[in-house]
Amino acid sequence: MAAAAEEPLFLRACRGEPVERTPLWVMRQAGRYLPEYREVREKTTFLGLCKTPELAAEVTFQPIRRYNLDAAIIFSDILVPVEAMGVQLDFNPAPVLATKVRTEADVDRLIVPDPVKSMGYVMESIRIFRSGMPKTPLIGFAGAPFTLMAYLVEGGGSKSYSQAKQFCYEHPKVARKLLEKLSETISAHLIAQVEAGCQAVQIFDSWAGHLSKDDYLTFGLTPTLRIIEALKKKNVPIIVFAKGAHAALPELSQSGADVLGVDWTTPLDLARQLTGDRVVLQGNLDPSVLLGPIENIQTQVQRILNEAQGGKGHVFNLGHGILPETKPEHMGALVEAVKRLGVRRVPA
Amino acid sequence: MAAAAEEPLFLRACRGEPVERTPLWVMRQAGRYLPEYREVREKTTFLGLCKTPELAAEVTFQPIRRYNLDAAIIFSDILVPVEAMGVQLDFNPAPVLATKVRTEADVDRLIVPDPVKSMGYVMESIRIFRSGMPKTPLIGFAGAPFTLMAYLVEGGGSKSYSQAKQFCYEHPKVARKLLEKLSETISAHLIAQVEAGCQAVQIFDSWAGHLSKDDYLTFGLTPTLRIIEALKKKNVPIIVFAKGAHAALPELSQSGADVLGVDWTTPLDLARQLTGDRVVLQGNLDPSVLLGPIENIQTQVQRILNEAQGGKGHVFNLGHGILPETKPEHMGALVEAVKRLGVRRVPA
Repeated sequence: MAAAAEEPLFLRACRGEPVERTPLWVMRQAGRYLPEYREVREKTTFLGLCKTPELAAEVTFQPIRRYNLDAAIIFSDILVPVEAMGVQLDFNPAPVLATKVRTEADVDRLIVPDPVKSMGYVMESIRIFRSGMPKTPLIGFAGAPFTLMAYLVEGGGSKSYSQAKQFCYEHPKVARKLLEKLSETISAHLIAQVEAGCQAVQIFDSWAGHLSKDDYLTFGLTPTLRIIEALKKKNVPIIVFAKGAHAALPELSQSGADVLGVDWTTPLDLARQLTGDRVVLQGNLDPSVLLGPIENIQTQVQRILNEAQGGKGHVFNLGHGILPETKPEHMGALVEAVKRLGVRRVPA
Repeated sequence: MAAAAEEPLFLRACRGEPVERTPLWVMRQAGRYLPEYREVREKTTFLGLCKTPELAAEVTFQPIRRYNLDAAIIFSDILVPVEAMGVQLDFNPAPVLATKVRTEADVDRLIVPDPVKSMGYVMESIRIFRSGMPKTPLIGFAGAPFTLMAYLVEGGGSKSYSQAKQFCYEHPKVARKLLEKLSETISAHLIAQVEAGCQAVQIFDSWAGHLSKDDYLTFGLTPTLRIIEALKKKNVPIIVFAKGAHAALPELSQSGADVLGVDWTTPLDLARQLTGDRVVLQGNLDPSVLLGPIENIQTQVQRILNEAQGGKGHVFNLGHGILPETKPEHMGALVEAVKRLGVRRVPA
């Protein structure tokens, strides 16, 4: 293993080591705002893109080539494991699941898949990326159990996820069984991604913010802890992004995660208070800011860097995925601002 | 004026006086979950219901008759003043505005209406309610400037309100001008409601949670402060519900509002920390809980009462509007639980 000093900036920052500059990557950086992405995307369906390793690796390369970001995230979708569990999946463009999970029998029918056999294309995309861009650290990812359960129960996206919550309240034992099956599936999927070459992982709990703190601890964090536990032996930084779960930041900071993603509604100085500086924070520019003028992008980047200062560490990111209508030059202005303003004033 | 001890429970609680029981009302308590509401609603359109005082008062009476709640809120819609400002409005059932505000000329075209002349039907509904149910305190309400601006810019609802935010970033001066016009309109509308008989007011900043704290302070709280200032002379309790604006609770607690609404993602004990017990808190059961079993409703009511204990005061409510699919018996179970469990154990 190389000495820590030779590790890429992003990985050192995730480990809480002092760094010369705040690293950055952007959620959904391989996405529709890039003309080169849309060109590849035209050749196939969304799921087809996920399942064609050469194309998935190609769109993963694109934002690195254009912006020289500090990390890449393998192109895939959080619902890919749901399909591998036996639920037919479509994107129109919103995800549509062919069946809804509502009973214990529905849960029992779900498979805990072998990720290499059923999602080998993800591992192959990872290998292509790693051999093509060996210097850029690659993040593997998965949806968190509650978020995947929410899709399984609702049969797609939802405004309030009230049916998913109703399912938890009415059938807590069945919900726990489903969450355990999801934890197992997700753990195996993330471990396989690390074994294929990913140097960090992120767990996306996109719908955590629909739950009260109490319900999040029960149905969100508890099954996520199992995944963190399973991943620990792989010794890669673990990023948990529980969007909207600000009230659970104290508990999340003791979950074993190295880095916590924070959305833009919780300033990083408040997040630091709530996490007691036990973890590195990742975030948290409002993606809508990239739609506005470059001067305001720069002002908000500076504010966020200030709010993060003095904590255990900071990885710059948006507070959610980049919006498809973002101009590529505005993403460029963000990268320029973070690279210029994020330089440590005091030597590490 | 009657002595404080003779005032209704809800008003005394809003003023931070010690009370014998936690009062409760429910956002959207006059709504589609009630069969008697649906019956009235069938006779007319949604806007027609808002504009027919006898019917608006009738649906305001309904939840009080059925559940004997501690306060009523006059049936209307936050977009009614937007129509009075000159923007044609429709509900299909989501709100659709005939024009979008995008330029300074668009802002200049908007009228600051005389509420009594243009929205006299609201004042008439209030008078009918007050004479029909003089013992139940009546809340008047309005949307907050940012929330109304969001509708005006987007031309309706939105998932991310990114166009409204883009408008603020690109044209901050025009945005400020629009927000000022809205503050003026809303202040006059709320004052007219108080003069017609409302004994408390609530300002709904439904989309506050889409903004970073920094942007909320600029585009959300600042124009709301003007309304609070204008209302102070009326000496009625002012409730501000800035949904999702947990990070701004410290500033909100010094805004002059008597009561702050809190959504269910911020536990009331955390809200108490953030507000330094300067204000009464209102909330905060997840509306989805009412879809689940009664036992869980009772457990969560008890948790919320515990979290609120020891603060300046508490008004029980949901953390957002009641869901249309809620069973009336489950709403009944909520009322029963709060009235039973919310009795002060130590004499006031």
